[in-house]
Amino acid sequence: MKVCLLSNTPDPIKVIYLACRTCYSKLAPSEMQEVTDEKMVSLIKNTILSGHHSVLEHASFSFSVEGVSRALTHQLVRHRLASYAQQSQRYVEYKEDTLDFVMPKTIAKNYKDKFDALMKEIFKTYRELVEDGVPAEDARYLLPNASTTNIIVTMNFRELMQFSKIRLCYRAQWEILEMVKKMKDEVTTVSQFLANGLQPKCQHLGYCDETKPCGCYKFSTSALEVKSERNKLWDM
Amino acid sequence: MKVCLLSNTPDPIKVIYLACRTCYSKLAPSEMQEVTDEKMVSLIKNTILSGHHSVLEHASFSFSVEGVSRALTHQLVRHRLASYAQQSQRYVEYKEDTLDFVMPKTIAKNYKDKFDALMKEIFKTYRELVEDGVPAEDARYLLPNASTTNIIVTMNFRELMQFSKIRLCYRAQWEILEMVKKMKDEVTTVSQFLANGLQPKCQHLGYCDETKPCGCYKFSTSALEVKSERNKLWDM
Amino acid sequence: MKVCLLSNTPDPIKVIYLACRTCYSKLAPSEMQEVTDEKMVSLIKNTILSGHHSVLEHASFSFSVEGVSRALTHQLVRHRLASYAQQSQRYVEYKEDTLDFVMPKTIAKNYKDKFDALMKEIFKTYRELVEDGVPAEDARYLLPNASTTNIIVTMNFRELMQFSKIRLCYRAQWEILEMVKKMKDEVTTVSQFLANGLQPKCQHLGYCDETKPCGCYKFSTSALEVKSERNKLWDM
Amino acid sequence: MKVCLLSNTPDPIKVIYLACRTCYSKLAPSEMQEVTDEKMVSLIKNTILSGHHSVLEHASFSFSVEGVSRALTHQLVRHRLASYAQQSQRYVEYKEDTLDFVMPKTIAKNYKDKFDALMKEIFKTYRELVEDGVPAEDARYLLPNASTTNIIVTMNFRELMQFSKIRLCYRAQWEILEMVKKMKDEVTTVSQFLANGLQPKCQHLGYCDETKPCGCYKFSTSALEVKSERNKLWDM
Repeated sequence: MKVCLLSNTPDPIKVIYLACRTCYSKLAPSEMQEVTDEKMVSLIKNTILSGHHSVLEHASFSFSVEGVSRALTHQLVRHRLASYAQQSQRYVEYKEDTLDFVMPKTIAKNYKDKFDALMKEIFKTYRELVEDGVPAEDARYLLPNASTTNIIVTMNFRELMQFSKIRLCYRAQWEILEMVKKMKDEVTTVSQFLANGLQPKCQHLGYCDETKPCGCYKFSTSALEVKSERNKLWDM
Repeated sequence: MKVCLLSNTPDPIKVIYLACRTCYSKLAPSEMQEVTDEKMVSLIKNTILSGHHSVLEHASFSFSVEGVSRALTHQLVRHRLASYAQQSQRYVEYKEDTLDFVMPKTIAKNYKDKFDALMKEIFKTYRELVEDGVPAEDARYLLPNASTTNIIVTMNFRELMQFSKIRLCYRAQWEILEMVKKMKDEVTTVSQFLANGLQPKCQHLGYCDETKPCGCYKFSTSALEVKSERNKLWDM
Repeated sequence: MKVCLLSNTPDPIKVIYLACRTCYSKLAPSEMQEVTDEKMVSLIKNTILSGHHSVLEHASFSFSVEGVSRALTHQLVRHRLASYAQQSQRYVEYKEDTLDFVMPKTIAKNYKDKFDALMKEIFKTYRELVEDGVPAEDARYLLPNASTTNIIVTMNFRELMQFSKIRLCYRAQWEILEMVKKMKDEVTTVSQFLANGLQPKCQHLGYCDETKPCGCYKFSTSALEVKSERNKLWDM
Repeated sequence: MKVCLLSNTPDPIKVIYLACRTCYSKLAPSEMQEVTDEKMVSLIKNTILSGHHSVLEHASFSFSVEGVSRALTHQLVRHRLASYAQQSQRYVEYKEDTLDFVMPKTIAKNYKDKFDALMKEIFKTYRELVEDGVPAEDARYLLPNASTTNIIVTMNFRELMQFSKIRLCYRAQWEILEMVKKMKDEVTTVSQFLANGLQPKCQHLGYCDETKPCGCYKFSTSALEVKSERNKLWDM
């Protein structure tokens, strides 16, 4: 898996800051004076903590994600407030060196050879069909979830934060979690402050709302009390 | 202000229940046996509490909202995951009996006559211009935020819940808060269970995230601790 | 493949009609008099033809789609203005009788036995791994695009129209095209008028914009002229 | 009215090109060789003309729009696939020098003094109320549609194209049309090719679908034939 930041809004902190200030100021953006990074970050932080997240939409990030499984992308594209351009199995006819297969660790442990042999056989049949005139878009029905694909993903920062809440959670599927970690690393190169906000949902809530918590974070008694309290909501 | 439920997904609990079960079951919807309302509600409740909200999108509610101010609708239509059909000030040319003005209580208290006189004058000028050939779409530049309008609003239940989190909060603007209360009353006629979920955000979080809490709800020490803990997120 | 209309906005024509009228009328929805179906349809038709489509969003349709391949659903869920609840390969552990495989006709022709044998072997290995403790979410990496799945799809009518423009086109992939045809059949049972609007994009445009037209529709010389004219757009 | 491009995806042509190629190529973005601008533009053009527009979403543009009326912004924010940060009339309390009023030309012609006098009176009353303790969020009920506001708008290029189809049409309201023209001018400074795509819908369709065409463009007989043909759609 390879994740690269292809492009992003230049100076995202400034754009987000101007969005925050425009809401609450008599001044128009062109009239606002320059302030220090520290001041910009401080205003953004307070705005977010009070629940006003739409200002974060004005900064976008585009990632190139390469060599991930289609098991991953089928989950990924369920996030609808984002833009995708994915390698098409209808239009691309794979040859030996252009298709790989992602092997989960739990399979690699005892079944590496079996996995490799099965993938080899599947791909051999795929090629046999394609060479005999079966359209690639039909031959691909044989291809497994493990098949690699490439996808370009663009999310604005609000969505990236929402996406991380769900997919950086240890209850998320391991491959997509690995991808989000790499996305976060890429965001770190642009802004440590923004990267800090990419956290599993428990860090934003103050407690874990999963039925079966991962147990990685030890939540305080207060957190458990608050969770149990808000669970009464639907009984009111 | 008049809020009527124009239409809604029939038997929304059943549709949401089938959506929940489809995700986790070997069975297709057509193979699932009927279960009691109690069982359906119980599954939905557990699904929502664990953070899986997309199932709620399969039930929709359409409201007719009449006689609200355009101050309200300008806020309302900022909610983008919804559908709107609003009376157009470009195409509708108002006559005496078809335009009213919403007067806030804080104005009614000491300035009722002044407000009425000003509205009367504005409308007189509007009519004068229109009758002299100024297009309605331009004459409306005179019309105040207080001017009434009609709007049909369709939201799926997930969005209705999100909308309520923000606009049932006592920090929301009074007119839109009043509208959401009426929407909630309408939902109650369809399902008490679903209506229960329409709550300000503090009830979903377990604490208030506003900078200046309304003070209506007394949160426990635990809640304050959890809030202060999660506020550290962006410092990490 | 089985496609059933699970639920829909009752009396969708009336709701869409009220949405149209609300935009252009002095009257509020509650003040509007009943009119004949013919009059409602006529107003809706004129509204759509003039490019005002948002009114169509106030009617929604929920379909249960069963026994389609994951090749289909990976395409389907790329349509983002819709709601989905799909059987999870992470949470559902398939047994012999709960997983089937969709075989394309071009494969069935000469490779039926080979396809069946390969699917059998893949599934045998899947079961072997699962029974040996490999989590279902990892074992599924073996499963092919041909694997069947169930999904509940909710779209408002505007999106259903847009979806049909793309996926009822003969250049669409055969399985998803088959699904949309069945969806259209279901809509026909609710409203013949609305079903009429579910057409490939060429029928809405008046010409085909595909690089390689399917050739099924013979477009007039006028249509080809108009297409060639508008193709100059990006050269201006 | 002042429209400035605050920020945009750097090298948008390259990002869109990579998105196009990723869909149809065996290669991952990181393996693709540099090509000339001409080749990139040519691929993008063909991709768009064949109806594949999602690739355009990977480039975003943020505009600062200052001194426009709230009549304009109420129309603007109806475009839901965009992000907005608007000056709040709830939080901002206007003083003499921070609120202006947009006067339509049709009013300026014969009613300039009347307009000015009315605006002056409205604002005087607004200030009187505010100074007497009426909250700004209530006093604003007096403020007219003509009141100026500032708003930051972010749209990806696909949405910017869609937005232009509707709001660059001569049937659009004059103030928003003026704004889009200025947005287009700003896009021209980044890419003449992309700016070319910002056209009223008739230029994309090849004919005008409005009930009352503006008459500015003289469409060919072919165009009228095609329009009349496609109008039969809903009768089928």
